[in-house]
Amino acid sequence: MKAVYFDEKVKLVTNCAKPEMRANEALIKVEICGICNTDYEITKGYMGYKGILGHEFIGTVEAVNSAAHKSWIGKRVAGEINNGCGECEWCKKGLERHCPNRETLGIWKKDGCMAEYVSIPIKNLIEIPDNVESQEAVFIEPLAAALEILEQHHIKPYEKVAVLGDGKLGLIAALALNAAGLDVTLIGKHQNKLNIAKEQNVKTKIVSEQTQTKCFDVVVEATGSLNGFETSVSLVKPRGTLVLKSTIAASGEFNLAPVVVDEITILGSRCGQFKPALRFLEQKKINFKPMISAIYNIDNAVEAFERNKAKDTLKILIKMDKE
Amino acid sequence: MKAVYFDEKVKLVTNCAKPEMRANEALIKVEICGICNTDYEITKGYMGYKGILGHEFIGTVEAVNSAAHKSWIGKRVAGEINNGCGECEWCKKGLERHCPNRETLGIWKKDGCMAEYVSIPIKNLIEIPDNVESQEAVFIEPLAAALEILEQHHIKPYEKVAVLGDGKLGLIAALALNAAGLDVTLIGKHQNKLNIAKEQNVKTKIVSEQTQTKCFDVVVEATGSLNGFETSVSLVKPRGTLVLKSTIAASGEFNLAPVVVDEITILGSRCGQFKPALRFLEQKKINFKPMISAIYNIDNAVEAFERNKAKDTLKILIKMDKE
Repeated sequence: MKAVYFDEKVKLVTNCAKPEMRANEALIKVEICGICNTDYEITKGYMGYKGILGHEFIGTVEAVNSAAHKSWIGKRVAGEINNGCGECEWCKKGLERHCPNRETLGIWKKDGCMAEYVSIPIKNLIEIPDNVESQEAVFIEPLAAALEILEQHHIKPYEKVAVLGDGKLGLIAALALNAAGLDVTLIGKHQNKLNIAKEQNVKTKIVSEQTQTKCFDVVVEATGSLNGFETSVSLVKPRGTLVLKSTIAASGEFNLAPVVVDEITILGSRCGQFKPALRFLEQKKINFKPMISAIYNIDNAVEAFERNKAKDTLKILIKMDKE
Repeated sequence: MKAVYFDEKVKLVTNCAKPEMRANEALIKVEICGICNTDYEITKGYMGYKGILGHEFIGTVEAVNSAAHKSWIGKRVAGEINNGCGECEWCKKGLERHCPNRETLGIWKKDGCMAEYVSIPIKNLIEIPDNVESQEAVFIEPLAAALEILEQHHIKPYEKVAVLGDGKLGLIAALALNAAGLDVTLIGKHQNKLNIAKEQNVKTKIVSEQTQTKCFDVVVEATGSLNGFETSVSLVKPRGTLVLKSTIAASGEFNLAPVVVDEITILGSRCGQFKPALRFLEQKKINFKPMISAIYNIDNAVEAFERNKAKDTLKILIKMDKE
């Protein structure tokens, strides 16, 4: 089968072996995938991952290796990307995504979904209803990650929320929190990207116009830069919460004194549950289409990764099928 | 009066004017003060403060400028160091220590207590009962700061707590959390300092012997170094809490990815309430005496600040009186 493989560089492999189903796994014929910023980070060395890339996908179940789960065959699905051991304290608490022995699709110890087929545990499947197109449904994983903020922290209806950064992550976070009824301002550098949120009733601001400091109860940091982190710290009220959504790693001056003096809470936030995200998708709470910058065929995946590097690019999708 | 003054360097001023009582203030004849690490940071430029140093003190009320508060005269007291405007949303919530217009004794806009006299708002006074010696009572402010952790975060009885750093801050945090009935391990580099906690039933460990990672529900960072911050991140369990007690400002490699991946909560933590700290003092829950490295007379305050720089020094006290 064809697969997008990373080993020092991104390459298209055309003679990759079809994945073998392990116990209680389903074999899925992949229809469409998304390139996430984490995929880009992996191509720069993040997690030291080598293998088939990708963790955002929609596909159709082609086979299961357990008769009890035959009803999944033919269903259009997405899949939870973290696979825990099922035995440890985290798995028992329903937090498989923190299992120390977990595999993570296309990120850690498990081949990803940018291929014609992927095999994942049946328990990780979620069925996509007919009224959700695959091009929307493929946003389920980043949307779940945005809604994770609401699982971790209670944001009150009267509180002011800022999302800093108008890339994919920031846009989805702002749209998701706004769709959850919160008072959200998306702060970024690019008017064209901000407009995607503005058209869906999110308040927006160019960062240079945000002169007031210590004025948001919650700030979501979605820039991934040290500079963005410092701006986020400056925007949050004393005793407020800074949600760290992007994995910042940088060299430079690093001052945590304001965090102590203002007793700010910094909340690291990663993956979320798919079920609430699916509800948002079914109810059309967010229009994801304006965030799709391009759709490539898997034959042009290397080009798709090149395009993904450009500053003005939002979501790049990869389709397996030619039509 | 004599006062320990900072302006580019620490100096003893012998002809300082006695402070003038403002509305609703009390004039206190200072008996004893403590040197805090924040004082040392100020002498290196922190907060850009110039003026009389010091915010940890015990003294006796000599005068009040309001007849309604005459009963304070002659009482031995400590004083809350933050003085809010009384009008803003923070003050109204009982969080004067986060008032944006606050003064902070010896740190921000308000002359400190390392002097023969200090004047502070009457509402900030707290009476020290007879069974608490001044040499113990002077620890009320750092003890309140340690107990602030329990105000900000609910630590459950079965959770494992580590305090990283065996300086004054770390020792007091470990002793306070242990005295609150929690399962505390103090991790540091100096066996002699660790022993002070060990003798009061705190578990201790030399940092090089702490090889297990991700094993504490709560880690209190009290080293003030970037290296200590990274060690703290490595010690905390996924979804655990890192309490940031020291104001870290450094240059170097800075990686927040583990905070996001493990969804760690970082909780900035500063000053606390004096009342619970006084209860701990009255009930003799902690023996502070082994932490006193030396007591200097104010005449030798410059020398006291020099001594405070030495790595093996814990708390340095400054007495006003010769005997």
